Amino acid sequence: MITKIEKNMSEKKRIAVILSGCGVFDGAEIHESVFTLWAIENAGAEYEIFAPDVEQHHVINHISGDEMDEKRNVLIESARIARGNIKPLSGFNAADFDALMLPGGFGAAKNLSSFAFDGPESTVNKEVEKAILDINKDGKPIGALCISPVILAKIFGKAKMTIGSDQGTADAIQAMGATHVNTTHGEVVIDENLKIATTPCYMLDAKITQIAEGAENVVKAVFKMLD
Amino acid sequence: MITKIEKNMSEKKRIAVILSGCGVFDGAEIHESVFTLWAIENAGAEYEIFAPDVEQHHVINHISGDEMDEKRNVLIESARIARGNIKPLSGFNAADFDALMLPGGFGAAKNLSSFAFDGPESTVNKEVEKAILDINKDGKPIGALCISPVILAKIFGKAKMTIGSDQGTADAIQAMGATHVNTTHGEVVIDENLKIATTPCYMLDAKITQIAEGAENVVKAVFKMLD
Repeated sequence: MITKIEKNMSEKKRIAVILSGCGVFDGAEIHESVFTLWAIENAGAEYEIFAPDVEQHHVINHISGDEMDEKRNVLIESARIARGNIKPLSGFNAADFDALMLPGGFGAAKNLSSFAFDGPESTVNKEVEKAILDINKDGKPIGALCISPVILAKIFGKAKMTIGSDQGTADAIQAMGATHVNTTHGEVVIDENLKIATTPCYMLDAKITQIAEGAENVVKAVFKMLD
Repeated sequence: MITKIEKNMSEKKRIAVILSGCGVFDGAEIHESVFTLWAIENAGAEYEIFAPDVEQHHVINHISGDEMDEKRNVLIESARIARGNIKPLSGFNAADFDALMLPGGFGAAKNLSSFAFDGPESTVNKEVEKAILDINKDGKPIGALCISPVILAKIFGKAKMTIGSDQGTADAIQAMGATHVNTTHGEVVIDENLKIATTPCYMLDAKITQIAEGAENVVKAVFKMLD
């Protein structure tokens, strides 16, 4: 006999989160990542964290901004945010999840894609691209924070999204065929056709409470598209 | 003329936060650190982040748990959580702050003190000890999460605190002359005499929403002692 609690547990939505390292300047933005996980759990769902098992583009000293003479691995560093509960993105199976979330940080534009260096001519990590296309093919929603919408612009071309109000990045998004909508703190832009929800977070000059609000709002928008 | 808004701004409480690296197994626990910053701002106060400019005890691969053949600096790694807005603890001046917060993670027991290796015979980093003693001398409160109360036990001896319900750690705390109170998720123990508030967070097997709750509760307890 399945009890009500067991039934509820088995019905929990499962959300995949892709990280890109650990630290805003060379990896996943830590506050955005933590509040994304928190918002997923707060919405009554479960998360599972993934990252590609590749070398970081580089390592940045987060005080000076200088490049450090070190090598770090995206999966191993992402595990710091995940407290070890992380899987290589090569093992991602879209059938296991109801939605996909992409927190921001330069890692999205340096490790998951080459947008930070190549702009509209950037390439996307093949495993990241496959995860996004597989989720989309199944009609499942995707949420993206901060700079990570550029990955979706590169993959889908025609998509409506926001990265806040940075003109240079907005222009690059439009150059990839997507439509950029200016937003401020906590606002979410939804592409109903592609089931994509985006929010600016630290692409704006933001406070940590505004990041919590943005993460919560974009996760809620993703959950609405699950109904 | 000082407007009401300016007056309110100038009256904002200022809370110092000491980090110990970036990652639960060799530094500051990331979720606890982020939710501590968020809870401070959410309470209408400002935070300033500090860390000692010392080498980490070691670097741990957060997937395998193995030690890595690397050296990292506590201040530079803590800057990942702080997004670069961090100061060396040597520059800490208790007069500038209303309270002090210590998030947890093994960094508190490996980098800020030697508790992870020496238990009750541990030593505390001199700058950390001075910051805590200076705040306490001024009659200002201290909040500590997870394992970091062991630092307060070592410094103050007679103090009432919690690290949750881990018997070995509780015994070590008692061996240092302090009193341990068993607690569960989100609970806070207050030593009214020393103005110390403690909460277990990830010293218990916890979910991320429980960490947010614990951080919020311990920050609220600290703010209550400011009134």
